[in-house]
Amino acid sequence: MRLVQFCHRGGEVGVRVGVEQAGGQGVIDLKAFDPSMPSTMREFLEMGEKGMDCAKRALSSGQHVVAQTDVRLLSPVTGPEKVVCVGMNYKDHCLEQNAPIPKEPIIFSKFPSTITGPYDDIILPAESQEVDWEVELAFVIGQKGKHIKEEEALSYVAGFTVANDVSARDWQMKRNGKQWLLGKTFDTFCPLGPALVTTSALKDVHNLGIRCLVNGAVVQDSNTNQMIFQTEKLIAWVSQFVTLCPGDVFLTGTPPGVGVFRNPPVYLKVSSSIGKSMHISTWLG
Amino acid sequence: MRLVQFCHRGGEVGVRVGVEQAGGQGVIDLKAFDPSMPSTMREFLEMGEKGMDCAKRALSSGQHVVAQTDVRLLSPVTGPEKVVCVGMNYKDHCLEQNAPIPKEPIIFSKFPSTITGPYDDIILPAESQEVDWEVELAFVIGQKGKHIKEEEALSYVAGFTVANDVSARDWQMKRNGKQWLLGKTFDTFCPLGPALVTTSALKDVHNLGIRCLVNGAVVQDSNTNQMIFQTEKLIAWVSQFVTLCPGDVFLTGTPPGVGVFRNPPVYLKVSSSIGKSMHISTWLG
Repeated sequence: MRLVQFCHRGGEVGVRVGVEQAGGQGVIDLKAFDPSMPSTMREFLEMGEKGMDCAKRALSSGQHVVAQTDVRLLSPVTGPEKVVCVGMNYKDHCLEQNAPIPKEPIIFSKFPSTITGPYDDIILPAESQEVDWEVELAFVIGQKGKHIKEEEALSYVAGFTVANDVSARDWQMKRNGKQWLLGKTFDTFCPLGPALVTTSALKDVHNLGIRCLVNGAVVQDSNTNQMIFQTEKLIAWVSQFVTLCPGDVFLTGTPPGVGVFRNPPVYLKVSSSIGKSMHISTWLG
Repeated sequence: MRLVQFCHRGGEVGVRVGVEQAGGQGVIDLKAFDPSMPSTMREFLEMGEKGMDCAKRALSSGQHVVAQTDVRLLSPVTGPEKVVCVGMNYKDHCLEQNAPIPKEPIIFSKFPSTITGPYDDIILPAESQEVDWEVELAFVIGQKGKHIKEEEALSYVAGFTVANDVSARDWQMKRNGKQWLLGKTFDTFCPLGPALVTTSALKDVHNLGIRCLVNGAVVQDSNTNQMIFQTEKLIAWVSQFVTLCPGDVFLTGTPPGVGVFRNPPVYLKVSSSIGKSMHISTWLG
């Protein structure tokens, strides 16, 4: 299944959880199908199997379909407890910066206030001159757990999506005592989605093409088979430290092609055609 | 006012927001006083002035008082969007480690899952041998804002409390690519509270004694007048990057006396008398 959060265009019912029909044939409004269903993905995931079963029934029903043109897609999760990020997790990204391949995952975070819709603007802050892109495979936790074993880790994942770990390199690399947080956490620095693709709907999440386009030009183009620490390992690692809970978002690291390691470096700019923002397209599959 | 979150001992009504009466004369249950009031501090703070006015009326009424012995105090905030932390923010703490006094605040974070009650156990993780204490002045945001000016910053604060920025020094300083997050973010590594003291009830928050006791012995004893970047500056600084919102918690840095800089270093241990945990008392005022 492809789960989404969306708004009805022109409607006033607010955020809804939806299930996308195959081939872009509209989105089924889960709360219209069953009024006992919650309005946000985080609450939906907290219901566990009961929610997933309802989504399956809704999809089978083919009813309460909102036409694609009437749907405004939001990020599939908003307001998670955690946005867990992984640094230096692609072999080819380590090579492009002459960095050794890490022996352990390097974990940092973004505040949940970074999350923005997949088609929304990224606000280019006046405080940074070096805003860069980082397309990443993301996954979302569906079940609470601590000290999760690698062998069982995938059962804790609700699904996968795509994200951009937008990064202000000046703040990440040269300021703030070299703690990455500030450079990673400006508002809107985490475009996420559109769809949360449930694990069972993906054949092999560690063999997917992953690309980033800036103004239509491909700037990153790799494959998730280049990941150093895969989903299962990341869940086992991070759950040594923290209890994971439904809605928690993981960003699993970026492949090569970021702007900062180009010669000369390339950064995002205010595009005069779209105002104080810049569109990044991300693609996974 | 002294605002708290609490549970009725033996009761089954769950978390409540309360107002402490002077002199430890019990806690007024805000939802019992006015059933339209929410059950969590974050929701209460999101109501803004309306909530604060209700709390004042509840305190004046002297009704719906729960005796202190029937109250189990929780952390004053749970599930905030952000726990913003400041490193190296006491002059005397910089001196004890021969570090230069920072010219800009150093900002890092803990996940909200670190927050635990002021009298609850800290879980000593098997993954660390170097768990240390850090008493800190904390404040909680009461109003949404971005790019907040220093002159107006205090009006964005709901109140102040005390916290412990418990830190696994091995993970903070030697692992994880020197990104501090993992060492700072084990479950229960942020005892917070008990009371959120509203700003108007404090004469001068930047001239308060601040102490940490481990097993009854004073290990940190300083004054908030040693802070390098004060509340107003921290709010102005961080709100350049992120939109602050009601419930966001700031930990403002620790004074000297932490275990890692002692000779030899001292760390927290499992206390056989209290099981797999250790009690730290914090004190502010």
